[in-house]
Amino acid sequence: MPLNRRITLAARPVGLPQDSDFALDEVEIGSPDGGEALVRVLWASVDPYQRGRMSDARSYARSLELGDVVTSVNLGEVVESKDSRFTPGDLVVGQLGWQEYANVRAGTLRQVPPVLEPPTLALHAVGLTGFTAYFGLFDIGKPRPGDTVVVSAAAGAVGQIAGQLANLAGCRTVGIAGGPEKIRDLTERYGYDVAIDYKSDDIAEALRHERVDVYFDNVGGEISQAVQRRLNLGARIVICGQVSLYNAQQPEPTFHPGLLVVFRARMEGFLVFDYAHRYDEAAARLLQWIASDDIRWREDVTEGLENAPRAFIGMLNGENQGKALVKVAERA
Amino acid sequence: MPLNRRITLAARPVGLPQDSDFALDEVEIGSPDGGEALVRVLWASVDPYQRGRMSDARSYARSLELGDVVTSVNLGEVVESKDSRFTPGDLVVGQLGWQEYANVRAGTLRQVPPVLEPPTLALHAVGLTGFTAYFGLFDIGKPRPGDTVVVSAAAGAVGQIAGQLANLAGCRTVGIAGGPEKIRDLTERYGYDVAIDYKSDDIAEALRHERVDVYFDNVGGEISQAVQRRLNLGARIVICGQVSLYNAQQPEPTFHPGLLVVFRARMEGFLVFDYAHRYDEAAARLLQWIASDDIRWREDVTEGLENAPRAFIGMLNGENQGKALVKVAERA
Repeated sequence: MPLNRRITLAARPVGLPQDSDFALDEVEIGSPDGGEALVRVLWASVDPYQRGRMSDARSYARSLELGDVVTSVNLGEVVESKDSRFTPGDLVVGQLGWQEYANVRAGTLRQVPPVLEPPTLALHAVGLTGFTAYFGLFDIGKPRPGDTVVVSAAAGAVGQIAGQLANLAGCRTVGIAGGPEKIRDLTERYGYDVAIDYKSDDIAEALRHERVDVYFDNVGGEISQAVQRRLNLGARIVICGQVSLYNAQQPEPTFHPGLLVVFRARMEGFLVFDYAHRYDEAAARLLQWIASDDIRWREDVTEGLENAPRAFIGMLNGENQGKALVKVAERA
Repeated sequence: MPLNRRITLAARPVGLPQDSDFALDEVEIGSPDGGEALVRVLWASVDPYQRGRMSDARSYARSLELGDVVTSVNLGEVVESKDSRFTPGDLVVGQLGWQEYANVRAGTLRQVPPVLEPPTLALHAVGLTGFTAYFGLFDIGKPRPGDTVVVSAAAGAVGQIAGQLANLAGCRTVGIAGGPEKIRDLTERYGYDVAIDYKSDDIAEALRHERVDVYFDNVGGEISQAVQRRLNLGARIVICGQVSLYNAQQPEPTFHPGLLVVFRARMEGFLVFDYAHRYDEAAARLLQWIASDDIRWREDVTEGLENAPRAFIGMLNGENQGKALVKVAERA
């Protein structure tokens, strides 16, 4: 058996994470205990929420300790199983972390249905980021046909799906992203009606004639402040993420609650994990819309586990074009 | 016919309004046109929303122009009517402004039912501030028995009713107000389970063991920031007012939307005017609860129209003990 290469948290990042906040080590791979499976990691997901785990600020999930393997969602294949639900060769998704192998409780793994092609869809459009878009938009945003839906980080893993779901719901869609490549994707690939480049456009000016019924917010900060000045009466602001603030050392408040009175509006946060009992519903529909080409997606692949920190830092900087993934190994 | 004394906006207040922002003048009283009634003002209401009307910032209602009579809700008696719905002597509520007489379209007036004793109840507990508490708490806050409900400005016109409604809904109630007299009212008169004096207590410390399911927010600012750190999962923040900010010249944002993700919480604003079609529902229930002594109220009366600006400035400073009212005239 080879050694297990792992990426651990070497230091708590201050501001934007740096390479030196992570360490690569190698440890022996144990055998699974009863009820566990040994999984070989094929792909690792890189997501903004991981930044929160690296901080010791109170949040919805426990912080990483220094020396812990960095938390991540992964696609892997079962190598050895001590649980009747899995056999070697099964493709699974689970919280395996930035490492090559993991022994995990079988109950925390989900089978990847063979119909998923490529199977990495289980890490985005038919996985947590797709589910996040689905429940955030439909359950929190409650779009109606004719509504104007604005999505920030609209070319990102969640944003690209949220905009297309809003199109399916009969809405006018406005996507905000940074840089000409993403802007092109917004209209040509993801079907946004309007694309705004926050790096080169004046957002307030670009939104001057819009009345925003639903704002699906992945970023917070100044972009959101511009959108919030263009709300329609009865608007819904879906707080999915605030990635522009995740590296802030003393994040300042960014919102005037009085706006909610002026616009009789609602701002609501959610966590996809609270919808676990409905993942099957979302997966079935997303898969069908992908098959019918109503939902398109794009992956931004970094090769090699050792490059996961770089992929993560790049994603926090908005450098990824599509869902950020790290390819750790080929399937056996 | 005497002259009509009026208080007009002489200058847009900068920060806290001053006496010099208002002017007193006297004009002739015209006769009502067809469909109008001439109403003699008996009482004028003094409310935080009036501060917004004095500013030229965009909001949900048109700003006053300089020289306009200051907007207010009033109790008055009909002197002359050119509309079949009203006859002289009728007690009515309407937007008459800070003046002694007004000719207004009859359709904007509501009859005060004789069962209201004192009739000034139509200006608070069985009027707009009571309705604000009723719809804000029940329709936006959606309290359940066992919930902890925190109310800011809890001894104010809206807060005193909101806390008692939460008690009726089976909730634990925590009221925040300033000064020993109000604190005594919170527990002894309005039945709050816990009273916190923001002028002398450490709010964070006082809330240390609370988990807030509903926060009925009348004030915004630092008090709200302390409450928002103690939310329970699934909390609802009702944005009724942000009176601590109404005099701020460049109000800074005060809220971190990311908190809504951590707590899977909802923050929602509302305007009582949007519930006009349900005022009768609220009035009937509030009246019944007042009759059964389940809801108590307190008025803070200033005598004389000329003192309305002082009453208004004092209310913005939190000096009123109960609903701020100005007595303009005795009933004929």
